[in-house]
Amino acid sequence: MLLDQIQKENDIKNINPRDYQALAAEIREFLVNKISVTGGHLGSNLGAVELTMALHLALNLPEDKIIWDVGHQSYTHKLLTGRREGFETLRKYGGMSGFPKRKESDCDSFDTGHSSTSISAGLGLVKARDLQGENHTIVSVIGDGSLTGGMAYEALNNAARLETNFIIILNDNNMSISENVGGVSKYLNNIRTSNAYLDVKDGIYDAIRNTKYGEPVVAGIRRAKNSLKQLVIPGMFFEDMGITYLGPVDGHDTNSLIRVINEAKRRKNAVMIHVLTKKGKGYAPAENHPARFHGAEPFDVATGVPLKKKMKANYTDIFSTVMIKQGQRNEKIVAITAAMPDGTGLKRFSHAYPDRFFDVGIAEQHAVTFAAGLAAGGLRPVVAVYSSFLQRAYDQILHDVCIQNLPVVFAIDRAGLVGSDGETHQGIFDLSYLSSIPNMHIMAPKNKWELSDMLKFAVAFQGPIALRYPRGEAYDGLSGFRAPIEYGRSEMIYEEKDIALLAVGSMVKTGEEVYGSLKRQGRFCTLVNARFVKPIDEEMIRKLSHTHSLLVTMEENVESGGFGERVRTFVDECGLKVRVLSIAIPDEYVEHGNVELLKQEIGIDSESILKRIHEELGEN
Amino acid sequence: MLLDQIQKENDIKNINPRDYQALAAEIREFLVNKISVTGGHLGSNLGAVELTMALHLALNLPEDKIIWDVGHQSYTHKLLTGRREGFETLRKYGGMSGFPKRKESDCDSFDTGHSSTSISAGLGLVKARDLQGENHTIVSVIGDGSLTGGMAYEALNNAARLETNFIIILNDNNMSISENVGGVSKYLNNIRTSNAYLDVKDGIYDAIRNTKYGEPVVAGIRRAKNSLKQLVIPGMFFEDMGITYLGPVDGHDTNSLIRVINEAKRRKNAVMIHVLTKKGKGYAPAENHPARFHGAEPFDVATGVPLKKKMKANYTDIFSTVMIKQGQRNEKIVAITAAMPDGTGLKRFSHAYPDRFFDVGIAEQHAVTFAAGLAAGGLRPVVAVYSSFLQRAYDQILHDVCIQNLPVVFAIDRAGLVGSDGETHQGIFDLSYLSSIPNMHIMAPKNKWELSDMLKFAVAFQGPIALRYPRGEAYDGLSGFRAPIEYGRSEMIYEEKDIALLAVGSMVKTGEEVYGSLKRQGRFCTLVNARFVKPIDEEMIRKLSHTHSLLVTMEENVESGGFGERVRTFVDECGLKVRVLSIAIPDEYVEHGNVELLKQEIGIDSESILKRIHEELGEN
Repeated sequence: MLLDQIQKENDIKNINPRDYQALAAEIREFLVNKISVTGGHLGSNLGAVELTMALHLALNLPEDKIIWDVGHQSYTHKLLTGRREGFETLRKYGGMSGFPKRKESDCDSFDTGHSSTSISAGLGLVKARDLQGENHTIVSVIGDGSLTGGMAYEALNNAARLETNFIIILNDNNMSISENVGGVSKYLNNIRTSNAYLDVKDGIYDAIRNTKYGEPVVAGIRRAKNSLKQLVIPGMFFEDMGITYLGPVDGHDTNSLIRVINEAKRRKNAVMIHVLTKKGKGYAPAENHPARFHGAEPFDVATGVPLKKKMKANYTDIFSTVMIKQGQRNEKIVAITAAMPDGTGLKRFSHAYPDRFFDVGIAEQHAVTFAAGLAAGGLRPVVAVYSSFLQRAYDQILHDVCIQNLPVVFAIDRAGLVGSDGETHQGIFDLSYLSSIPNMHIMAPKNKWELSDMLKFAVAFQGPIALRYPRGEAYDGLSGFRAPIEYGRSEMIYEEKDIALLAVGSMVKTGEEVYGSLKRQGRFCTLVNARFVKPIDEEMIRKLSHTHSLLVTMEENVESGGFGERVRTFVDECGLKVRVLSIAIPDEYVEHGNVELLKQEIGIDSESILKRIHEELGEN
Repeated sequence: MLLDQIQKENDIKNINPRDYQALAAEIREFLVNKISVTGGHLGSNLGAVELTMALHLALNLPEDKIIWDVGHQSYTHKLLTGRREGFETLRKYGGMSGFPKRKESDCDSFDTGHSSTSISAGLGLVKARDLQGENHTIVSVIGDGSLTGGMAYEALNNAARLETNFIIILNDNNMSISENVGGVSKYLNNIRTSNAYLDVKDGIYDAIRNTKYGEPVVAGIRRAKNSLKQLVIPGMFFEDMGITYLGPVDGHDTNSLIRVINEAKRRKNAVMIHVLTKKGKGYAPAENHPARFHGAEPFDVATGVPLKKKMKANYTDIFSTVMIKQGQRNEKIVAITAAMPDGTGLKRFSHAYPDRFFDVGIAEQHAVTFAAGLAAGGLRPVVAVYSSFLQRAYDQILHDVCIQNLPVVFAIDRAGLVGSDGETHQGIFDLSYLSSIPNMHIMAPKNKWELSDMLKFAVAFQGPIALRYPRGEAYDGLSGFRAPIEYGRSEMIYEEKDIALLAVGSMVKTGEEVYGSLKRQGRFCTLVNARFVKPIDEEMIRKLSHTHSLLVTMEENVESGGFGERVRTFVDECGLKVRVLSIAIPDEYVEHGNVELLKQEIGIDSESILKRIHEELGEN
């Protein structure tokens, strides 16, 4: 195996160039085999094999720095920097992260996870290098999908006037997670289809100069004060900003890639290398179903079919189904996703009502203010988004939706712990950042039927409203509890006295478990489904305080600014005679791993909660 | 007066076209006179007089919609839509807002305040129009400064594929609040200096076609599979994305503007009209000092000199001075602003250390991740930013700075109530959104010396740290209290018993007033300067609980997720025997007006607090 010769960074340089293709094949086989067992991001990694090899061949790590945008393409990089064993524990608790991590390796120069950050971070490293008189090469690798995020453009705008070397590699696979959208994508596509590969630029220059009409044309253009440079160069879009454009280059030809990287290293300004790759390259199922193999569960290598048969519907499925029905009932309902038609479950809505569906690209800021515009225009927009990505639009929610009190629905998927994606993707802040915003309303369903009921409530609501629900299987217990959703009202599940559990969303199920454990100990407790996080159900809390000595709030969110603090403040301000125990996520980032394990680790599983209750009652 | 003939929207259509110039002059005189008394945004409004007139002449309000990006240029629009009287109370409590407000007029179609939102909002209104079978015109007016914000690009990317009319007016004055930066600005500047006004495009086309060499050139270019369209058109940048570009047009020629708007209305796609204007146009002091007249205090019309002589230094000045000194002591300190070198006080730093100063444009997201890159590269970045604008970078603070625990300093100006700018600009959320983030540290100085001490502490601190300070005069009381800043430690000012005031930043001064009032009533209270909002000084709180029955937390921030909730939670969780009264901003947006008035209105002035304390003690 060629791979056996690569134990650490730069070992790849000992590989004979004629074996590059064989090495790429070995890497692909390795990745497919490993990810088929652990799950992980397959498509984007398969697409970046040769690009990563070329970077490692042309650069000198760890002195030179590579910043991987999002990081979904960094597996080969990990493999080439001594982390082969890590793939056994990929994305497992305590194991190797699926994203670049500075604490994992000196060769990871900047942590990523969310989209469109790499050029900004790279520019920071460039300026730090220059100011400290250092001399290494810095490369930001960004996908064309990430280029739909405005932050990347802010950074390009700043890179444009650099007078020092900075290499930006545009890894263009003509895809985001799903199909790409927008004007830039169209523009890049035009370049792709022109087949105008690497050397075409110089060729064209020469061709024009050498015609007998060349000179007068040049003169004519000069009169219009535009330079010849702007004539027919692919990548004018970037050159116009002041960034040297090289490409497009075949992203699966290692030697071409090395050549162009070396050329780019010689420039004294920002250089964009446009690299054309294929998502899923070399593994037919991933090439044919790129969205499905973006983030893959364990699968059968021969067929690409997932190993675990999906048994129960997840919350995303429920959301998807209800959106179709609600869309039929109310023509004013429109749906927005930021590049996640599959992940959010809006794909079916997009097929049923193509005119009322908007995929805006990886552009959460625009998504939210666009929704505000739709609402101001009289429609009922539903923004379907992952909790951790909505963080990008905090200001837009506060400034564009809530000041005007516009009826925008936020359907927040992946709220709470998400598991194997880790710190960057945990949806554990939304209750806090949304609660701080005036006019905002927040709900969380306890089970699949309640998600349905809450969504119906939300699309009829006259103001900004969010419903947040977790990743994975939708809870199908407590099916008998389906009292109509009433504004600001919680739902009594089991009414007892002394101890009351007041649980938010996913924690109602955990509350049931605590209830069950206490029952086995011969005790009974009240269980209330909070339903609303903002406003809280003050009447219920008041009522509970009369017959209970301990009120346990339970939420899958950080404590600061969350549900528990809100309840505690109310209890305290009203002087209610009930102690409050707040179960929430502690003030720290939560790494990757199995969600159940993580819950135990941070003390929000039923056993830990039971222990806390006993402590609180002085029973330990 | 021509203006007397304009009582409401569309009245301008009765003005004789030959009087347009005279009307523009009257409007300018009106604006200069009014703003010289009330203060307000002058430069951008003077620049947009003819553009606004042309829009009102070419459109039919309120059916047609204009979205004013930021809104600093909307005064003429207000004047032409029946709000002339409003200028008497401009930006005063209960008076007319300085920004577009839907609740103020039917002719205001979308509220703005922060930068770069108008295209997103406009696109939403466009889709709402089309889906509901309506037929009006929608125009987003955006400045070239706002075009440095990534959100605008996200929206342009989405506008590019429209197959329906949408007009974007690029109001290009070659300025942000201060000088503009970046590649796009350079690009636009190239167009400006080319003097290639409106009709040049067609002219060039014809010129090339009519030369005897025209046809072969076209053929040659076709071989390279690029279209003639891309040859020498100003605005290729936008055309490349799929947006029709018209211009550049003289923004002070009303008739040309009307013609081009009417032309744009006929297109069945997104159209960008590039309008060249001069900030401060028609008033020499504003033309000559555009940054000073961006947001102006009352001034003398004849000279442009501010009426009130500035007596005391404000917090921005102190920050500015200390940055110079710290920059000298530590070469690793670098400074970043998002288009606010003047407003944040970094201008002097930029002159002293030009290589270590970065104005990134109106791009808070990039600013923060760029700072993270600088810190990862070994430098000490200080991001100077207004509180309400930092909301834009919540995800970047959480995701790019704090996960990696990078030593980035956030110098947060305009924290707390800002006064006349109103809802969109109040800096009353930062303690909440920053507190929710793990690894973040937060300080607030009580007076000018403490800002200096805290900044010194911050630039030496090994992790993410924020200091927040208010707009306006720096408090110069309590000068005798200058114990060294210690991590996580508060500062005892007056030590008594029974009632303890625990005040954050600006509220220490208010605490002194409360202390004084109580003293006059023959009572004494303890006053503690919190200094740190995260982490809170648990030892001090514990100590206070032993000798006090009431602990009053005081902060200029919303209650949810703020300092008070944090303190209350600690007190409650530890079972400390002290009641907590939390003084904070209620859960609502705070409108424009004098800060002292606003504080009374929302109950955080010393008198209201005194009343709350008496109530809490059962003394009312």
